[in-house]
Amino acid sequence: MEKILQGNKILLGACYYPEHWDESLWEEDLRRMKENGISTVRVAEFAWSKFEPTEGHFTFDFFDRFLDAAKAADMSVIFCTPTATPPAWLTNQYPEILNARMDGTLLSHGARRHYNYNSHLYRRFTAKIVEKIAEHYAKHPAIIGWQLDNELNCETDEFYSESDTIAFREFLKGKYGTLDALNEAWGTVFWNQTYTAWAEVEVPRPTVSNSVNPHRVMDYIRFISDSTRSYAKLQSDILRKYIKAGDFITTNGMFSNLDNHLMVKESLDFFTYDSYPNFAYCLDEEPRSYMHFKDRQCSRNLSEVRSISPQGFGIMEQQTGPNGWNTRIQAPAPKPGQITLWTMQSIAQGADFVSYFRWRTSTMGTEIYWHGILDYSNRDNRRLAELKDIFKKIQCIKGAAGSVYQAGFALLKDYDNVWDARLDKWHELVEKESESGIFQAAQMSHAPFDYVYLDHAPDAQALFKKYPVVFYPHALLLTKERVLLLEEYVQMGGTLVLGCRTGLKDITGKCPMHKLPGLLQKLSGADVLDYTFVSPDDEAVIVEWDGLELEAAVFNDILEPLGSAKIVGTYKNNYYEGKGALVYNEAGKGKVYYFGGAFKRETAMVFLKKLGLAEPYGGIFELPESCELAVRKKENALYYFILNYSKTPAKILLKKEMQDLYTGKRVSGSIELEPYGTSVYV
Amino acid sequence: MEKILQGNKILLGACYYPEHWDESLWEEDLRRMKENGISTVRVAEFAWSKFEPTEGHFTFDFFDRFLDAAKAADMSVIFCTPTATPPAWLTNQYPEILNARMDGTLLSHGARRHYNYNSHLYRRFTAKIVEKIAEHYAKHPAIIGWQLDNELNCETDEFYSESDTIAFREFLKGKYGTLDALNEAWGTVFWNQTYTAWAEVEVPRPTVSNSVNPHRVMDYIRFISDSTRSYAKLQSDILRKYIKAGDFITTNGMFSNLDNHLMVKESLDFFTYDSYPNFAYCLDEEPRSYMHFKDRQCSRNLSEVRSISPQGFGIMEQQTGPNGWNTRIQAPAPKPGQITLWTMQSIAQGADFVSYFRWRTSTMGTEIYWHGILDYSNRDNRRLAELKDIFKKIQCIKGAAGSVYQAGFALLKDYDNVWDARLDKWHELVEKESESGIFQAAQMSHAPFDYVYLDHAPDAQALFKKYPVVFYPHALLLTKERVLLLEEYVQMGGTLVLGCRTGLKDITGKCPMHKLPGLLQKLSGADVLDYTFVSPDDEAVIVEWDGLELEAAVFNDILEPLGSAKIVGTYKNNYYEGKGALVYNEAGKGKVYYFGGAFKRETAMVFLKKLGLAEPYGGIFELPESCELAVRKKENALYYFILNYSKTPAKILLKKEMQDLYTGKRVSGSIELEPYGTSVYV
Amino acid sequence: MEKILQGNKILLGACYYPEHWDESLWEEDLRRMKENGISTVRVAEFAWSKFEPTEGHFTFDFFDRFLDAAKAADMSVIFCTPTATPPAWLTNQYPEILNARMDGTLLSHGARRHYNYNSHLYRRFTAKIVEKIAEHYAKHPAIIGWQLDNELNCETDEFYSESDTIAFREFLKGKYGTLDALNEAWGTVFWNQTYTAWAEVEVPRPTVSNSVNPHRVMDYIRFISDSTRSYAKLQSDILRKYIKAGDFITTNGMFSNLDNHLMVKESLDFFTYDSYPNFAYCLDEEPRSYMHFKDRQCSRNLSEVRSISPQGFGIMEQQTGPNGWNTRIQAPAPKPGQITLWTMQSIAQGADFVSYFRWRTSTMGTEIYWHGILDYSNRDNRRLAELKDIFKKIQCIKGAAGSVYQAGFALLKDYDNVWDARLDKWHELVEKESESGIFQAAQMSHAPFDYVYLDHAPDAQALFKKYPVVFYPHALLLTKERVLLLEEYVQMGGTLVLGCRTGLKDITGKCPMHKLPGLLQKLSGADVLDYTFVSPDDEAVIVEWDGLELEAAVFNDILEPLGSAKIVGTYKNNYYEGKGALVYNEAGKGKVYYFGGAFKRETAMVFLKKLGLAEPYGGIFELPESCELAVRKKENALYYFILNYSKTPAKILLKKEMQDLYTGKRVSGSIELEPYGTSVYV
Repeated sequence: MEKILQGNKILLGACYYPEHWDESLWEEDLRRMKENGISTVRVAEFAWSKFEPTEGHFTFDFFDRFLDAAKAADMSVIFCTPTATPPAWLTNQYPEILNARMDGTLLSHGARRHYNYNSHLYRRFTAKIVEKIAEHYAKHPAIIGWQLDNELNCETDEFYSESDTIAFREFLKGKYGTLDALNEAWGTVFWNQTYTAWAEVEVPRPTVSNSVNPHRVMDYIRFISDSTRSYAKLQSDILRKYIKAGDFITTNGMFSNLDNHLMVKESLDFFTYDSYPNFAYCLDEEPRSYMHFKDRQCSRNLSEVRSISPQGFGIMEQQTGPNGWNTRIQAPAPKPGQITLWTMQSIAQGADFVSYFRWRTSTMGTEIYWHGILDYSNRDNRRLAELKDIFKKIQCIKGAAGSVYQAGFALLKDYDNVWDARLDKWHELVEKESESGIFQAAQMSHAPFDYVYLDHAPDAQALFKKYPVVFYPHALLLTKERVLLLEEYVQMGGTLVLGCRTGLKDITGKCPMHKLPGLLQKLSGADVLDYTFVSPDDEAVIVEWDGLELEAAVFNDILEPLGSAKIVGTYKNNYYEGKGALVYNEAGKGKVYYFGGAFKRETAMVFLKKLGLAEPYGGIFELPESCELAVRKKENALYYFILNYSKTPAKILLKKEMQDLYTGKRVSGSIELEPYGTSVYV
Repeated sequence: MEKILQGNKILLGACYYPEHWDESLWEEDLRRMKENGISTVRVAEFAWSKFEPTEGHFTFDFFDRFLDAAKAADMSVIFCTPTATPPAWLTNQYPEILNARMDGTLLSHGARRHYNYNSHLYRRFTAKIVEKIAEHYAKHPAIIGWQLDNELNCETDEFYSESDTIAFREFLKGKYGTLDALNEAWGTVFWNQTYTAWAEVEVPRPTVSNSVNPHRVMDYIRFISDSTRSYAKLQSDILRKYIKAGDFITTNGMFSNLDNHLMVKESLDFFTYDSYPNFAYCLDEEPRSYMHFKDRQCSRNLSEVRSISPQGFGIMEQQTGPNGWNTRIQAPAPKPGQITLWTMQSIAQGADFVSYFRWRTSTMGTEIYWHGILDYSNRDNRRLAELKDIFKKIQCIKGAAGSVYQAGFALLKDYDNVWDARLDKWHELVEKESESGIFQAAQMSHAPFDYVYLDHAPDAQALFKKYPVVFYPHALLLTKERVLLLEEYVQMGGTLVLGCRTGLKDITGKCPMHKLPGLLQKLSGADVLDYTFVSPDDEAVIVEWDGLELEAAVFNDILEPLGSAKIVGTYKNNYYEGKGALVYNEAGKGKVYYFGGAFKRETAMVFLKKLGLAEPYGGIFELPESCELAVRKKENALYYFILNYSKTPAKILLKKEMQDLYTGKRVSGSIELEPYGTSVYV
Repeated sequence: MEKILQGNKILLGACYYPEHWDESLWEEDLRRMKENGISTVRVAEFAWSKFEPTEGHFTFDFFDRFLDAAKAADMSVIFCTPTATPPAWLTNQYPEILNARMDGTLLSHGARRHYNYNSHLYRRFTAKIVEKIAEHYAKHPAIIGWQLDNELNCETDEFYSESDTIAFREFLKGKYGTLDALNEAWGTVFWNQTYTAWAEVEVPRPTVSNSVNPHRVMDYIRFISDSTRSYAKLQSDILRKYIKAGDFITTNGMFSNLDNHLMVKESLDFFTYDSYPNFAYCLDEEPRSYMHFKDRQCSRNLSEVRSISPQGFGIMEQQTGPNGWNTRIQAPAPKPGQITLWTMQSIAQGADFVSYFRWRTSTMGTEIYWHGILDYSNRDNRRLAELKDIFKKIQCIKGAAGSVYQAGFALLKDYDNVWDARLDKWHELVEKESESGIFQAAQMSHAPFDYVYLDHAPDAQALFKKYPVVFYPHALLLTKERVLLLEEYVQMGGTLVLGCRTGLKDITGKCPMHKLPGLLQKLSGADVLDYTFVSPDDEAVIVEWDGLELEAAVFNDILEPLGSAKIVGTYKNNYYEGKGALVYNEAGKGKVYYFGGAFKRETAMVFLKKLGLAEPYGGIFELPESCELAVRKKENALYYFILNYSKTPAKILLKKEMQDLYTGKRVSGSIELEPYGTSVYV
């Protein structure tokens, strides 16, 4: 059986649903997969009823037959726990296992992900089905690894059942010990919310203007993350007892209200992502807008995945066809070349395993339009032909397997700020603008970068060794530990770039009585005297920096320098015309910039250029903005991936001779990349 | 008493609410109605409390007095069963009779249509009130017919009470017999929805992303249609026992999730429609858009009604004033001439009875702004004067009574596809575009057409005899029976026009593993190799057909010909440039076109012209696009109705001398029709 | 202790939350307030738990200490009852006290204003906490007055708990005595809503199309107003027993579904308003539109407050910083000068007490972004500096304290029509257009006016003495009493201006069978023959009046004159071209105009000019449209407030020499007012 992520091969897979098809189709399906380069299938994530058709009655024949067929076809199998869709007998008999809306309305059987993680009963049923399955199938030679559940926190990442309230109380007791500590942490003295008994504490519930104490919501999100992780760990702990040596445990998708990094550390061998770049072309999108980054935006997500799973990662579901439900999401078919483009996008960003969703389009259910490689008719089609071609390309670039993505700088994040930006609309606005702005500017200036989560950060030394510059755009929440790390990083010679609103909050989301940017005031040398949103009645606010003009979008901090720091950028308009907009400071061997606005794309581009981050491979390539450049390194070889996201050809210039891995030929000079075309050079 | 729909007269009526007015007004009201041409009143559809003021206590005096007054005034009466608004004592005592929202919230007393059809209790109360009323009033000489309930499925066509769940289970047991059959039909193996006990089966309920198994929803809609029909039949069966010979049973309005055709067959003598063309001018409409078809769109609905009730039909509520509720719908007054226009629109499309809503505007309740002919003040007004003028015109065209609408082609439909297009957003998009496109192109090229529902179709011979060409634009669901009928129709010499997505599904809404267009592949000679939505990032997709260019909107099938078929239209752009867009085939004496897109208005116009359907009366008339032409035939006389929907005068050309029925004069040559003007020529 | 609203000083205050801060901060906070001109603090409106931390256990130490600190700092205190936020132990133990959504979902602890006014239990808890607090604190020398609750009916003005239904029934029994009378008043015969037992009557509940009998809703709004007032009176009656002589009772904010005028008469010594003009610049506003009146719109509200509290009023919360919740409302900081501008706006409109919200920005809770004067850091900032400057200006204009606003005309209102315009969408459209149009035209032509509520009107004589002209734009509901008052007013020589739709309804909201404008037909001499909305398909409807053209927006009455009246304006287009649009009548010494449309801004301007109301101080000032002129009079002195709402300087011309109170200098001729600048001249 072919094993994935061994560092020596890039492999392809497919999602397959044996229970959806007549068994007579299996053998032929497996044969055609293999013939077209697929060496792995993922199965069983929605198949609970195939294992436990009624409560307590277990049957294993069905997947025994399938696994034997896979073995016979030399097809590796990733086996799933089926907990994402509890059976009807369970939801009907035990409605307490259901998730609820905030107002208490139970979510019903008939779709998926309608359960909650905290029902003791559901945990018991989960443990039993996982144990039974593991016990029975784990030793099967076709199996190479396991997927937990399916897309944890997909569809919804909020839980309001009674079980959740009970578990939330336990979470809070564990965290705070006493109600006094909880009242202090949540600032319940505001609007008289003081709790006098644990029974008074609930998950967020309907209020008059749909607003609930933000510190309570912050802890509620942390609680959801904890619940999700512990639910994953419940399953992985059981599986570990049974799986064969060398078999892996993973889960798929990257969803919110969840510390994915920690889940990987606690429960998984590596992470897999579900990549659907075609969402960018759905009927309710407007991809023609100048600012729309279309399918290329997916590279941002893949960079996050790389951060979550530094040990390497795979794509468990890679888009192969039009996507859609019968009730929503109307998407076109991928254009010829796009399946290749999206596969190479995944690989360029670090994936060495790409499993396509799905082998053949479902003939039934909500996802009849969520197409697979094959259409309903089962005949060979142009998408299968493209898959076959991808398989050839994969062979050409197999040397890249196990190579490491090369980033020129890092964008720092942490879950506290990610979650705060969800619940805090003021935070959200600057965060969205800057995250999108920096990503897009980096893409357009061919400057690969990494995400680094400070929750799970390396020490300052390791950080500095990898990244001479880090952006930490709007860390409203700061902790002493993170600030210490940043101070050390700068002392060693790192360059730290901060944006407006930094340091406003403590870990609870409350705003300490300090001068801004709070814990980072000393390091940044910036003092925020005043601040304001840019109102719809205002003109765009412009900053001058060494003769360059850049916009300070969304929100403005009005700055003065402290100590050795100095103003290097000033506002050109609004009531703070002439006041400080950009403060520069030095500390040890390093530098700190504090910018009083959000990093809009063009603004971020100015920073990348001024800090020498733009076009890091400009000595080798001259590339149009429409092309992504990604670089992976293995031993001494650098693999340059060039991806053309445009529907028109792209002209690229190789300033030195290199090898085109698809053709094996040495090439240089002006080269035209076809629409949606990709190349890999060494 | 004047009887309606006897084929010898076109008659006018009014909706009247004796219970809304002081009895002293009745005599004068009836006298003024008669004076202005109204010979029929409809009464009692919301008057339950007048018959049964408290549970089990029945009183009949009130309507006895009214019926006697009507008799004395020589006014015919259409009497209604009052079940559309159960009394407060009933809803309060027996909340189980109420309809509910999907989340279970009961709908409350205080508006209308808040009951469900499946509560046994409500059926018992219904049977009793209908029986009591029929028993008491049926022999009254003023009564000429009966209306069941009022606007079944208006306001809402979804029902989620507990009674509905119970009845849904019974419906399914009857349909499938076993849970195995149901699981198979609904594809419950997808997302592990397999049912193991009937108690697990419910009407659709809230799910995480508001999506419920589509096959279950399809059966749920069929169940609603069944419930509604059986509720109507419950009432008509009782009425039939009591009504006088010659008196009719009807109901009014044309609402969704209901097989109106079958309801007519089972329970009614004919169908009546409620026509409110002024919706097109409400404040939330945008009638200035070039594509907006305004009040003329109502002719589409009337064509549907003609299909539902081939034995003839009436208008039970024809708009006479501004419409609106106090909470929504802000509509202007009809312009002078528009009441006449809309009346003639109804008659032109086949109605021989037009009853105006309502005699006098309500002085109370939610509908204080749903104006009648008279305003609150009760004085003669311009609308009453227009009514008087309409009455004169009606006399002039009385020869047309009983005549039959003449259609040059048919648009085929069936409830399976109508309902599937409601629940399937992919289906809905092509359906809406083509239904609107073909209707508007037909109107603008003065090419009258019929709807034919294949659920209740004539045999192929009858179809071919009436219609040389039929469109069946996007029949995603096909059945063998319907395909057989189409094959016979084409063999005989008919021309069949199909559009993209045809044949995708079976009767359950699942997608069989066949090549598209599925059951129609043989007849059409088309093979769909690939398909895609037209994405917002794409240019409009153009097809070339014999040197003409037409757009293939919304969704594209990429085609190859089979057997004797050939490509006659090719795509000019997108990734399938040069591939087949229109396949032409011949079978027997007939022809089949398969077009790979939706029929946008301009596209439909190309088809009408190419197939010789446009301007079928072009030898007689030259008409501007703003005028509708409708033709009714009786014995050897053809009645040409010309309706000017524009607020400016329309120039029409009569190429031969004809009689203008309004004036009795012989006319020919260039004629100017006033704004909103109408003419009838023989 | 400084007392407010004594007619001899204009005083400043601040909202302060002792419970939000470490006690060690109090002394310094109070000292800095005093230093910057603040002489009053409001406290305790959300501090229930500080008084009754658990049920029945009362503690008073905390505010004893604070009051003593205030006394020591010579700071006056406005003490609040804390009922706007019931404690967690109360809501948890007695959920019946909670408010509910229309569908019955209870609103939960975690925000504010989640209680209902009608729960007997909550009234009992309220009475107890108010009594305990009053008993204990009332005699404290620092206290100068009391605020009831906080912002009654803020957040929501609808109540759907079971307690509300029970109380609604009692309200209706009191009002109607019998169900027959109720059925008659509500027109329940429409749609068969007749009630046969009181138990059937509920507050509005979900119905199929979210529409409930409008007469029932009208009484429901009256019931809410009654509930709110009686809840306020419950508190004030208790407080009156304990407070010191000379101490006042007030409440704050001006919210809907509430007869504020009557509440003031029954329970308060005067009214206070919460003024947040910066809402006009929030991110979801579009202040750049030509028609947007931005922060200046607040003057409209202040005029309402003046009407509510003719004995004088204060501002309890005057905006000092950016406003916002963490979940919504993103607002910029006030520009330099705007805090002054808004303070002077309040004073110009009649406020002699301005209390700023809040001293220091909250460090916690939903309102972390609802900024106070000071930022989180507590340091002196530019807003504090502006406050200090305001304090200086206040000293300069202290002579104006106790002066009375001078209005040239009145806009008549009454709660019946205000409430009807909320529930009746047809009414709402004309009402909004005209209220905004007349206000803006008055502002732009520097013509100060008053609101007069006819519910609480002076007699005709008093009305005429103050206002030579009154507008009563769209009184759909008329009563005989109000019509009599208007007749007397006109007879005396007053000019009455009416707009379309007048007189349509009676007090229940039903439409009597009379000619329009109903009870005002005789006085106006207008007869409405026909009427219509202006549809989106129509051009703007233009009226000619003495050669001037003005638009008759939204809705048109088509008019004929009666008796001595005559048509002075005619329609120039639409189907009623040439028909009457403006009827003029004389009665006694007075005049009546009936205009057949809504008063759009430019239309209202024509009326102001024709009636000689524009630029009443044009002999003294020539002002740009961007400046508001307000005039207050005391004895023989006239205080002219000029406020520049523009971000650019304004050129004003003083045609005679006057004293600039800020500088004390005599000035005349051309003067430039800085951006957001204000002046007061005598």
